[in-house]
Amino acid sequence: MNDCLFCKIVRGEIPCQKVYEDDRVLAFLDINPINPGHTLIVPKEHFQDMSSASGEALRDLVSVSPKIAKAIVEAFGYKGYIFSTNNGGVAGQEIMHLHFHIIPRGKDDGHKNFARGGYTEGQMQTVAEKIINNI
Amino acid sequence: MNDCLFCKIVRGEIPCQKVYEDDRVLAFLDINPINPGHTLIVPKEHFQDMSSASGEALRDLVSVSPKIAKAIVEAFGYKGYIFSTNNGGVAGQEIMHLHFHIIPRGKDDGHKNFARGGYTEGQMQTVAEKIINNI
Repeated sequence: MNDCLFCKIVRGEIPCQKVYEDDRVLAFLDINPINPGHTLIVPKEHFQDMSSASGEALRDLVSVSPKIAKAIVEAFGYKGYIFSTNNGGVAGQEIMHLHFHIIPRGKDDGHKNFARGGYTEGQMQTVAEKIINNI
Repeated sequence: MNDCLFCKIVRGEIPCQKVYEDDRVLAFLDINPINPGHTLIVPKEHFQDMSSASGEALRDLVSVSPKIAKAIVEAFGYKGYIFSTNNGGVAGQEIMHLHFHIIPRGKDDGHKNFARGGYTEGQMQTVAEKIINNI
């Protein structure tokens, strides 16, 4: 896509701080990290998000991500990481080119995961049935 | 694993509100949802987390996840979703059996993504080099 920021990075028209590259995948540092080392992994082919990506692109991304995540964690002594992708602006997606985040996490890094709720009696079954009917 | 909660769910020893199942993957509602419809997708084979999972298990999970996510979003009129896995207790992992979350998101659902930071001049290159040396 001509006007896609990540496509421009893939084509080398905009610089990035690259950490990994192969024929189909590029990984580079997020310029606004949640923690230092926060890395984005993108397919070189343009897909808007996970829902529109090819199965092959998703499989490529998860095939290389663990070794990159391990390298980030080990490089800085982190204790874990979040691997995630936001789909849609409402979910936090800012660049409309599929990207997975590797967000390294440390004890007391100040970030709090989302608050959790619950279901009333019988509600779970109704919710599950609605989903099953749409699969 | 005998004492793993999700292995017990996979074996049917503990009930779950199932939304999808095939030979290698099970998806069921999170009992403490971030938003209603929040679903967990697990490999039937036990792996502690993404870092120790087989490539095949990860590829199985991402192959079926988009259609489940789409069904959740459509069933309730959500506008997007987060697809994520927490690796390590410090990252929010509570059950030590690899699981991906599909967290549906709506406008004004009250959840805020983590705060972002930045890098000082030259710091990004140093950080990237440390990661590259560990891959």
